[in-house]
Amino acid sequence: MESGTYPEFSTHYPLLLTTFMKRPVSLYPQQIGVVYRNHVTGEYSRFTWDQWYRRTAQLAHMLQSQFGVKPGRPGAPGDRIGTMALNTHRHLELYYAVPCMGATLHPINVRLAPEHVIYTINHAQDKIVFIDDAVMPLLENIYDHIKDTVEMFVYMSDRPGLPETRVKNLVSYEALLAQQPDQYDWPYLHEDTNATLCYTTGTTGQPKGAMFTHRQLYLMTLHVMAMPSVVNTPQHDIDAGVGARLGENAVPMLNTPMFHIHGWGAPFINVFSAQKIVLPGSFTVQGFCELVEREKVTSVGIVPTVAAMLLEYPDLDKYDLSSLTRIGVGGGALPLGLKTKLEQLMPNFRVSSGYGMTETAPTTIMSFVKKHMVDWGREQIDEIMVKTGLPLPGLEVRVVDPDGNPVPQDDRTVGEIVIRGPWVTEQYFRAPERTAEVWRDGWFHTGDIAKVDAEGYIVIADRLKDVIRSGAEMVPTVLLENLISMADFVLEAMVVGVPDPVWGEKPLALVSLRPGHEASEQDVIDFLIRHGVDTGKITKWMLPRLVAITRDIPKTSVGKYNKKQVREQLDRFLAIAKDVSGPAHSQ
Amino acid sequence: MESGTYPEFSTHYPLLLTTFMKRPVSLYPQQIGVVYRNHVTGEYSRFTWDQWYRRTAQLAHMLQSQFGVKPGRPGAPGDRIGTMALNTHRHLELYYAVPCMGATLHPINVRLAPEHVIYTINHAQDKIVFIDDAVMPLLENIYDHIKDTVEMFVYMSDRPGLPETRVKNLVSYEALLAQQPDQYDWPYLHEDTNATLCYTTGTTGQPKGAMFTHRQLYLMTLHVMAMPSVVNTPQHDIDAGVGARLGENAVPMLNTPMFHIHGWGAPFINVFSAQKIVLPGSFTVQGFCELVEREKVTSVGIVPTVAAMLLEYPDLDKYDLSSLTRIGVGGGALPLGLKTKLEQLMPNFRVSSGYGMTETAPTTIMSFVKKHMVDWGREQIDEIMVKTGLPLPGLEVRVVDPDGNPVPQDDRTVGEIVIRGPWVTEQYFRAPERTAEVWRDGWFHTGDIAKVDAEGYIVIADRLKDVIRSGAEMVPTVLLENLISMADFVLEAMVVGVPDPVWGEKPLALVSLRPGHEASEQDVIDFLIRHGVDTGKITKWMLPRLVAITRDIPKTSVGKYNKKQVREQLDRFLAIAKDVSGPAHSQ
Repeated sequence: MESGTYPEFSTHYPLLLTTFMKRPVSLYPQQIGVVYRNHVTGEYSRFTWDQWYRRTAQLAHMLQSQFGVKPGRPGAPGDRIGTMALNTHRHLELYYAVPCMGATLHPINVRLAPEHVIYTINHAQDKIVFIDDAVMPLLENIYDHIKDTVEMFVYMSDRPGLPETRVKNLVSYEALLAQQPDQYDWPYLHEDTNATLCYTTGTTGQPKGAMFTHRQLYLMTLHVMAMPSVVNTPQHDIDAGVGARLGENAVPMLNTPMFHIHGWGAPFINVFSAQKIVLPGSFTVQGFCELVEREKVTSVGIVPTVAAMLLEYPDLDKYDLSSLTRIGVGGGALPLGLKTKLEQLMPNFRVSSGYGMTETAPTTIMSFVKKHMVDWGREQIDEIMVKTGLPLPGLEVRVVDPDGNPVPQDDRTVGEIVIRGPWVTEQYFRAPERTAEVWRDGWFHTGDIAKVDAEGYIVIADRLKDVIRSGAEMVPTVLLENLISMADFVLEAMVVGVPDPVWGEKPLALVSLRPGHEASEQDVIDFLIRHGVDTGKITKWMLPRLVAITRDIPKTSVGKYNKKQVREQLDRFLAIAKDVSGPAHSQ
Repeated sequence: MESGTYPEFSTHYPLLLTTFMKRPVSLYPQQIGVVYRNHVTGEYSRFTWDQWYRRTAQLAHMLQSQFGVKPGRPGAPGDRIGTMALNTHRHLELYYAVPCMGATLHPINVRLAPEHVIYTINHAQDKIVFIDDAVMPLLENIYDHIKDTVEMFVYMSDRPGLPETRVKNLVSYEALLAQQPDQYDWPYLHEDTNATLCYTTGTTGQPKGAMFTHRQLYLMTLHVMAMPSVVNTPQHDIDAGVGARLGENAVPMLNTPMFHIHGWGAPFINVFSAQKIVLPGSFTVQGFCELVEREKVTSVGIVPTVAAMLLEYPDLDKYDLSSLTRIGVGGGALPLGLKTKLEQLMPNFRVSSGYGMTETAPTTIMSFVKKHMVDWGREQIDEIMVKTGLPLPGLEVRVVDPDGNPVPQDDRTVGEIVIRGPWVTEQYFRAPERTAEVWRDGWFHTGDIAKVDAEGYIVIADRLKDVIRSGAEMVPTVLLENLISMADFVLEAMVVGVPDPVWGEKPLALVSLRPGHEASEQDVIDFLIRHGVDTGKITKWMLPRLVAITRDIPKTSVGKYNKKQVREQLDRFLAIAKDVSGPAHSQ
């Protein structure tokens, strides 16, 4: 019998995703842990935690024995394994088998432009790519550009067999899995072993690959899970019976694609919490409603666009959605009209907000009420909850001027958000010069512009590159867009700077109207004066000088506003814009 | 401007107690954070978080400039700073200033026997000792034995000046503090820097000093704070309105002495959670009631003895205790009579259980209901909640036979609890041979005996050294004691093994009766048969063969049963015991 000290099991006990994976199977082996509904066929796959865990072990064997995948060590990532997959049980198996055997998971964002998908696969040097049947057309499309990099493609489908394809080296996931042993001796890796590689969406130049270790993902997860210990429950939530935590009995549906920055952490949080995880493949309104009803989904986060789609779904009243007691709506300004409708249909929905980016894994800022606000009314609390939020405990977050000094907490002065902490990426994969652009003076520079109020709440105002330089001042465009979106008559709003001989730049607003609503360009300015200038949220000189009412607001492939296109085709947009400079603009 | 990678602010961002200390002052600088009531004078001291933080900074300056205290580094602890202090704001200042400047906090258990107090101070080589005025008599008593070790004594009192004493090198905390700058440049220490040194109570031999790093204490705290994300709230708690988390609005009172294994983690959890912390000095019934009423205390954990004292306090109905919505009663079996009374007076009290020891910092096992139990009735849930509990997420806990194999989950077979994980002590201070006794084959051996039920709940049965070897079987004494304590007529019960020519050892039970109750030795056996044997909790051969009804149950200085004394003075106890061997005992 060996004795002595065991730092590897005490002081240096490694923080590994393996610990998350092992918890539900040890507590609830025979309970259903993972439910997947194929969004094309509507068919269900249901797995107990024991079944899911055994499949994950089989996958690790497949990687090791079948494909010779090599694990990494601190400073030297293991082989990269790409996934081109939707939110399925197989993707959740990959989320654990790959990093827990020591290799690097690279969830490929299949909604990027094809040239960016090609770039990330080649830049990551993906040895194997796992691909959902639904994503095969994309693979066919880009195959010639990645076939020299990728050794093997693994086809994931609910149907047996392989499709007709020109893709060589395509093998079947289920067929290979079935041949593997279903127990795996998971190694005690060093916690600094690389676990994932997540590429940015590449809105400026080529995507950058942010790297994360087991330790970083473990600590992000744990800090998010500690939030209920510090989040203050508003009294009206307690009164409404939605104040109690659901714990392991929460039934979360994962709507955020798992190829978007770790699915915002859900695959880690929900597995460690041993909650039944509901996977919808890709979002459809019908799939959403069916899954909520059949699986008694309790918790889901949706963006305003999805909320609008739900409200307009004609069959909505055919479903029992009463299990949904925790609905967060965030990710954008919630138009007043939509909010009123939502409150009628779903009394338990709550507005929420937050901030994160690929490089921060992503969770860094979340909205919650401070301790003296719990007795406030719902409207007042909603005003707090739409602010971007407060830093997560354990992170250092500052909003700084160009010299690196924190800006005053006056709810007006803007600065750049800088962050450091246990789960901020240390570097981009194979790109030291791009790392040096963002890590300066011991802080990660986000390139996002924000202001801070007296209570410490941070509100995102803009991307650094989009901010409008008007005279000596900065006009934050996202702030203006969110304000305009609050108007009852507005569907979407984009604000962009256009050249001006006097001011350098001046703000142009492109505004689309909600169906059935009418409004003029001047109505937009009037709304901004009443709800922005008069309330102190913006100053007069921030008001747009040009407004165009139009249905033509250009977007990128991932649905973000494409301001670059407006700048490139400026004449077209200037031609439809109306000059609204007037007495209101004088300072 | 320096750029590049900053692993010290990303991959290796240090997990430090400093992060906990900085959070409340950044969020709530002007709110009251720390309230201390002097249990002798009844006087109150109230501090905003800003005031408490500034005092802590002043204390760090005092340590560094005044006393030349040296910080440590991984593998080489800094100077040890002893505290002989009750639960005061000054003790909470020491809890942060000492480790956050890099030195080692040694909270001295002033309830140990004086020779053990002397031993720990000399063994720790405490450079400075901070002492409360109320503890001066103990210092006077032991002074000659420690004066060559300790360079300086710092006197902490609400009154100015110093007492008449033969203690040399005694200086005033408040006088020195007032001279220091109130901002301190807290270093980014290495997370493996030693933070605390906690001695065991020394029930076998001299106390042993368990060492903990910043990382270990940070991770214990964070895992405990993540518990609300996985704890399932029973439906009857939701119905009773006690299901919602209080978050930062909880007002905890720290009843556990801060010299007991980090006050069970409260000084870390409650500061990081920015909750108003109520410190009662030392426990008194009047102080308890007054603090609950004045400070609107919401959350407190008490042991059955304290519960009994409260119920018998004649002035109890003069106080408004309605703020107390989270009362946990644990740390021993709750007699049925006491439970009924508590339910009448405090409908929100909940029984709870848990396990930890000095070497585990201490939290390792906590009772909570599994997900399929939330709809159970209160009685059934209470039966779960008095089981010792389930391992905390993030820890590996096993109950093993002598060969190291897990025992079957049959609620009957006992084995030793072994643990490993991020916050188990790696080694005892200056005692490699004692470390080697407990760390074997990669597991920390607790010396505690337990059984496991089919749901995975662990129930402590005994200390390894106290377990009775009867024939080929092990009789777990703590299990028997807890069972006997459930009898309405029982106040306390101790079970100890005495020599027997046939069986090797046989169980002797010493039982004291509650005032106003009568019972015979046979009544004890009858109760055990009805509530133990017939319910499957024990087997017949575990029944005591000797029972003594007595008020003379020997205890140690810290109130634990002193089984050693019974073994040493066996004749005295055998003389009053009655032989209850009978047909019930036959197998």
